[in-house]
Amino acid sequence: MAELVGNLLVAQSGGPTAAINASVAGVILEAGRHEFIEEIYGGLNGILGILNEELIDLNDEKAKTIEGLKYTPAAALGTCRYKIDFKKKPEQAARDMDRLFEVFQAHNIRYFFYAGGNDSQDTAHKIHLEAQKRGYEMRVIGIPKTIDNDLPHTDHCPGYGSVVKYNSATVAEIALDVSAMATDDGACCLVEVMGRAAGWIAAGTVLARRGPNDAPHIILVPEIPVNEEKFLAKVKETVDALKYCVVVVGEGVKNEKGEEIAADKSQLDAFGHAVLSGAADNLGKLITSKLGTKTRTVKLGYAQRAAGHYASATDIQESAACGAAGVRAAVDGQSGVMVKLVRSSSSPYRWNTDLQPLGDIANVEHLIPREWLSEDGFLPNEKFVEYARPLIEGEVKVPQEGGLPKYIVLDESPVEKKLAARS
Amino acid sequence: MAELVGNLLVAQSGGPTAAINASVAGVILEAGRHEFIEEIYGGLNGILGILNEELIDLNDEKAKTIEGLKYTPAAALGTCRYKIDFKKKPEQAARDMDRLFEVFQAHNIRYFFYAGGNDSQDTAHKIHLEAQKRGYEMRVIGIPKTIDNDLPHTDHCPGYGSVVKYNSATVAEIALDVSAMATDDGACCLVEVMGRAAGWIAAGTVLARRGPNDAPHIILVPEIPVNEEKFLAKVKETVDALKYCVVVVGEGVKNEKGEEIAADKSQLDAFGHAVLSGAADNLGKLITSKLGTKTRTVKLGYAQRAAGHYASATDIQESAACGAAGVRAAVDGQSGVMVKLVRSSSSPYRWNTDLQPLGDIANVEHLIPREWLSEDGFLPNEKFVEYARPLIEGEVKVPQEGGLPKYIVLDESPVEKKLAARS
Repeated sequence: MAELVGNLLVAQSGGPTAAINASVAGVILEAGRHEFIEEIYGGLNGILGILNEELIDLNDEKAKTIEGLKYTPAAALGTCRYKIDFKKKPEQAARDMDRLFEVFQAHNIRYFFYAGGNDSQDTAHKIHLEAQKRGYEMRVIGIPKTIDNDLPHTDHCPGYGSVVKYNSATVAEIALDVSAMATDDGACCLVEVMGRAAGWIAAGTVLARRGPNDAPHIILVPEIPVNEEKFLAKVKETVDALKYCVVVVGEGVKNEKGEEIAADKSQLDAFGHAVLSGAADNLGKLITSKLGTKTRTVKLGYAQRAAGHYASATDIQESAACGAAGVRAAVDGQSGVMVKLVRSSSSPYRWNTDLQPLGDIANVEHLIPREWLSEDGFLPNEKFVEYARPLIEGEVKVPQEGGLPKYIVLDESPVEKKLAARS
Repeated sequence: MAELVGNLLVAQSGGPTAAINASVAGVILEAGRHEFIEEIYGGLNGILGILNEELIDLNDEKAKTIEGLKYTPAAALGTCRYKIDFKKKPEQAARDMDRLFEVFQAHNIRYFFYAGGNDSQDTAHKIHLEAQKRGYEMRVIGIPKTIDNDLPHTDHCPGYGSVVKYNSATVAEIALDVSAMATDDGACCLVEVMGRAAGWIAAGTVLARRGPNDAPHIILVPEIPVNEEKFLAKVKETVDALKYCVVVVGEGVKNEKGEEIAADKSQLDAFGHAVLSGAADNLGKLITSKLGTKTRTVKLGYAQRAAGHYASATDIQESAACGAAGVRAAVDGQSGVMVKLVRSSSSPYRWNTDLQPLGDIANVEHLIPREWLSEDGFLPNEKFVEYARPLIEGEVKVPQEGGLPKYIVLDESPVEKKLAARS
């Protein structure tokens, strides 16, 4: 194995999570152990910042700041949704690639770590292929991260356990509230959670159930089209029996025509996906109009993926381990691979890390297996529970100041620019 | 002072909170110290359950269950929004009052504690007056509870500190997320919180700010009508400077015509108030259409008042103290009073309990003083911060099981009914 001497660059991409900073901490701490990794740089706002040569020197950060990354949510380096798109914008993409490699060369970047979801792994893959094509020796490693849990080949994704832990606790608490208010009038609360194509996040809230009458009573996932009639019947049955009903709704749920119940086609994101909003509100209106039941909605939005105050210790530990494993793989000469989590046992929970070629990852969406959902499609079953249960174990100790979590902020000591500004 | 021998009845009313069960624990634990308080009963679902003679024996609960009430959110006895309305429904109200006193007499209730907000204190007041009129010796004490913090005469309300703590942490976390994603496009996140007439909850999130550029950048409270033009200018100024903007919106915010921005007049609650929804969504649409800035909304809804996993230890301690103080007041011969919190110092924070006649409380809404808000009305100022800061101090240790909070559930051992069913 070649001892490649040079600098390391780590960057974050896509939606923030409670755990993505832990992966960066894992990268930094492991990289510090390898002599031939000289400087440890962070790229601000993913490849967008790297294109602008916005690098910071992570070795200048205090040791306790690096430790603090493990419990600080969001993305301390900043993130982006910028896409190098050879299909739709081939000229821009070619210019971007040239510029990226100018930056890599100017700063002697020989280790590149990109933490993100499907789109980000695709970007890492393109950079890996480009490095090979150019004969520029650089080890490119993808670090998995997405609350959506939709990356293939990994047992689950860093970030997922924390969102499920927070959302499950929240749904259990909402259920206590709604059931305390439940009188003969009946009431239904709809909780909208993230998840565009995959229902992993919504399904995860099944962990709030400790008994057969517990909430959530219905979980709608994008994998199963909503049959309006059966859905209303299930709500009615639940309200009749318990006087209340808690429904968890994945934002991307679809009707039987395959249309997103909440799609707002007037807004598209950088990847051309429709911005979603209002699935729970729309279903709430349906319930009120058809059943006369009073409804309330909760839309957790960004709160769910940023909830560092109630992150999963298991998730944080795994995220840090993925970062560290990525560095070890790169040092061992690997490139063009993503770190993945492999489970050897659910009870007791045992896992380790392994590697998967990036070419197997990009743009493949991993959905919930049909056999992990009940026959009527309204609840995940015991197979799903067995899978998800270990991922939310353990609480993270977050320092508090003035009654609020005290998260770290990077000093962001800039690395001197060596290139002219991006044209 | 007369040593009144008899049974105690405690009940909860109105919207649940993270702290209302702590008040019940305070009542039970203090009542246990007084010999001439014989049985300790709980009324299920407030006066609605009492009308149906649905009482449970709280002395049958395990000691650790009573302790667990301190950290369990919602309302363990159940709650209601039932109103004894002599103005609108005089005959029903008279029948209800007769029935209530039948129940009180049948079970020798001599101590009655009602925990709730404005409407509930009004109910307690009516019961107190009725007891006097009927010459039925019973001590009636109101225990303050409302996340809205709009009860007069008390420095603040049990339940308020916890919702502010959770909401402030959530807003700080959302801000980390949004700022991590902030690139030149700009982005605005609107977080809708509870608060129909009073903006205390929205204003409380100012505690998330540790520096002048920190979120929330704008807080809209129902007390200050929203001037569309000035609001948009402030959003633009913030996004131009920081690339992102976090706006906290009290659900009851109004426009300059005095209309609720989110009123849905098709739904009315039991008190005839319009059900509100969508203030943040409506303002988000305004921002996107006028400024072209991408917006996202978060609607915390019930999650904010049920968030026992991140309750304020100060709030829980005060709530329990209010329950205990109520029992001591009743034992001392008081009736027709509400326990209130009195602050003697903000720094260091010092407080104690006192009593206020219920006649001073009912249906008076305490709003944020204008001089506690900035001149432009977009942020609470240092006077507000000095007031609110101590209320969120301290974290509550909640037992965990399987990665989730383990809250208690009452056994609800029923008290044998002595009356015919309510007609």
